[in-house]
Amino acid sequence: MEPAVKLRRASYADWPVLSPLWRAVVAAGDTYFYAPDTPESVAAAFWMPGDPAETWLAEDLNMGVLGTYLLKPNQIGLGDHVANAGFMVDPVVRGRGIGRQLGEHCLARAAELGYRAIQFNAVVANNAIALALWRSLGFVIVGTVPKAFRHHQLGEIDIHIMHRFL
Amino acid sequence: MEPAVKLRRASYADWPVLSPLWRAVVAAGDTYFYAPDTPESVAAAFWMPGDPAETWLAEDLNMGVLGTYLLKPNQIGLGDHVANAGFMVDPVVRGRGIGRQLGEHCLARAAELGYRAIQFNAVVANNAIALALWRSLGFVIVGTVPKAFRHHQLGEIDIHIMHRFL
Repeated sequence: MEPAVKLRRASYADWPVLSPLWRAVVAAGDTYFYAPDTPESVAAAFWMPGDPAETWLAEDLNMGVLGTYLLKPNQIGLGDHVANAGFMVDPVVRGRGIGRQLGEHCLARAAELGYRAIQFNAVVANNAIALALWRSLGFVIVGTVPKAFRHHQLGEIDIHIMHRFL
Repeated sequence: MEPAVKLRRASYADWPVLSPLWRAVVAAGDTYFYAPDTPESVAAAFWMPGDPAETWLAEDLNMGVLGTYLLKPNQIGLGDHVANAGFMVDPVVRGRGIGRQLGEHCLARAAELGYRAIQFNAVVANNAIALALWRSLGFVIVGTVPKAFRHHQLGEIDIHIMHRFL
């Protein structure tokens, strides 16, 4: 059985080891809005915006950083009791359960921080693996925005808004 | 018949005349996420973020600024073909059709700028006037997020996501 990855809170100094993973996921153009040509400093600011946001890493002793998540308020002010989160897993280690491990950790952490719910604003409609994972963790689709994502291969496709109370 | 207001593009120098309207709307705590105690410089940055966003004003010759809207990409990168917009009308002149005038102008302007659709992320569920206006302008509810807005009087209430192709 493969060893589980260890999760730890990332600091800004971790960006250089995180960046290749972020780039690999974004380059595919099939899950995130981030433009593939996002400058490095902008990418770092997106994924590590700092307090009250938190960025976490999943590390393997031998393979290094294999996954990451970003947890932050979905809105400012009168909406900041609802969290938003984004997840990335290194494409070469998909299927090892790292996404689920990150998801479960994020749910616990969000509750710990006092958030009342988590909202995903853009689960790309053809992303069956993500949809299945989030459903299994208790998220439901609360909305679908037509043609809101310009998928690298499929063109304009729908995105789902998913939600779960904590 | 009351004279229609005139619309013009706002520049950052207009913030001092816009600010009282923005404050009046935000102070009510019933339509926007912005915290009522948002510092002035932060408020200005929210409502006038600059290119590619546009801020417009509705002015009355005698009464000054009576309304405003902010038009911007709803997402970065692969989602920036969908616009987002926010609208404010001075509470003392509600019912004069200024919201509709702003809405119609915004739809035309968004199309002119090449956006393919407009998405509202948070129409507060009890805001019957806004819902009726946007429905009459062709928007439909594509999702509802439960308890996502901390309404000043009503506590946590639902928000609707509304959408219209251009």
